[in-house]
Parts: sequence; structure tokens; C-alpha cells
Amino acid sequence: MKQCNMYKFNDIKLGMSESFEATITEEKVDEFRKITEDINPLHNDIEYAKQKGYINKVVFGMLTASFLSTLAGVYLPGKYSLIHSVEILFKKAVYINDSPLTIVGTVTEINKDFKQFTMKVSIFNNKKEKVCRGIMKVGVTDEK
Amino acid sequence: MKQCNMYKFNDIKLGMSESFEATITEEKVDEFRKITEDINPLHNDIEYAKQKGYINKVVFGMLTASFLSTLAGVYLPGKYSLIHSVEILFKKAVYINDSPLTIVGTVTEINKDFKQFTMKVSIFNNKKEKVCRGIMKVGVTDEK
Repeated sequence: MKQCNMYKFNDIKLGMSESFEATITEEKVDEFRKITEDINPLHNDIEYAKQKGYINKVVFGMLTASFLSTLAGVYLPGKYSLIHSVEILFKKAVYINDSPLTIVGTVTEINKDFKQFTMKVSIFNNKKEKVCRGIMKVGVTDEK
Repeated sequence: MKQCNMYKFNDIKLGMSESFEATITEEKVDEFRKITEDINPLHNDIEYAKQKGYINKVVFGMLTASFLSTLAGVYLPGKYSLIHSVEILFKKAVYINDSPLTIVGTVTEINKDFKQFTMKVSIFNNKKEKVCRGIMKVGVTDEK
């Protein structure tokens, strides 16, 4: 398993980017359902999902979004991460077979007063289609 | 387990509100770590978390945020939900003992052209402190 990067605040530069792949499995979808108790049939019932125009059960958007935790906490900045805020726009349904997803974060703004940076995030499926985009503001706690 | 509410688009009114309680356990934190592979020590290592000024291991923010999936998919609007976007601001660290959390969503805007509504969301710990606030835009798919 990937060890946490350890970028400090002064290492963070505009345009700096990190990316990684993440796998979504049926088991992860089932575990996410157990954790959240979100029993919505779109994620659970293939017939219902097809009736709504999807080709298969749809992966929970917030499960896809949960990899933003990994992006900040393991990759950029890694160990000294503290997520302040997250904005996510869901652009395209994700299916289990779309896995692995590629999660990309790029630094777009640095706030020295708050020891915080902003990163633009994108998540792609295995056909290189963008399924989510968003913005995270992340604090860097290396001095605490 | 709560069954999905089945509000249709025409049932959604300004000021309408739903809330529910959600439990965070050590097991859920561990499962979230397995799903995301976010091995950041803030969520895993009590000594590290204390060194950063916390009283215990901090629950993943995106785990707390994952209950927004349940808010839309089970409660408001429930079955016919399709989450378009989510914005979350983390205001206060969540600890396992802060559970149950209370998740509240209130309709603040209705867009008839997109069959979408906006809801303001708040998540409180068991001391009634607000730990997250945010905004979700949710489509209602009752006519598909």
C-alpha cells in the first residue's frame, strides 16, 4: 500500500499535481451501503437503474468522492493534510466496471496566511471520461 | 432500516426539511479506510492525532460527508434522488464518541427547468455542535 507523501506547506507549488488509481468493487459498494444505510435502489437494483436509463447499478457518487480523502490524506499533501472543504460536481454515472478510476489533483491557489491550498480535482473512469470534477481546500499542518 | 421516502418533484417545497441520526463506529472508520486506502495517521494513530492538538483519532471528513448520500437517497427526496453536486465545509473535528451525528437538510431553492432542488445541509455531533455545513443540488427523477 502507498505510504503517505509528506509534503510540507513550503513544498506546495502552483501547478503541482498528484494522481492515483482507485478500484471500486461490488464489495466496496456493499460496504458503503452498510456504513451509510443509503438503500436507494439506484445503487442496488439493476432493474430499477435500467428503468432510469442506466446500463447497470450506479456507484454511489459519495463513494467515488470518498477517494478525495485519499488524494489529500495520502498524496497531496499527504501526511500533514487537513481537509477544510470539498466541492464535487457529478458529471457522469460511474459503474463498477468503469474501475479503476483515476483521481487527479492540481494546486491552483496557495494561501500563506491560512497555510491552506486549493486544488482542482478530477476523477476519470477507465475510458478516460471525466466522471467528477471539484475543488478542495486543504490545510497543511506540518508546523503543529 | 428506514425505507426510502418517495417525494416527487412536485412534493418538494421551499423550507421542507428532513433529518436523521447516523452512527459512526470504529468499524465504520476501519471499513472506510479499507475502501479508500486513506492511511493518513490522523484517523489511525491516537498519538499522532494528539500531537496535532486533537483529543482522539479524527473521523475521516469524507466519512461524515458520506451520510449526505443517505440524506438525499433515503430522506429528501428519497427514492427518486440523483445527486448533482455537493459542497461541504468541515467546521469541527468529529470523533467516534461524538456519535450519533444528526444530519439535517432543508430545501432552499427549486429549479423547475432542471427538476432540481438545492438544499442546505448541516451535520451536528451529539453535543449539538455543527461539525459540517454544506449545499447539495439534487435532481428528482420521478418522471423517467
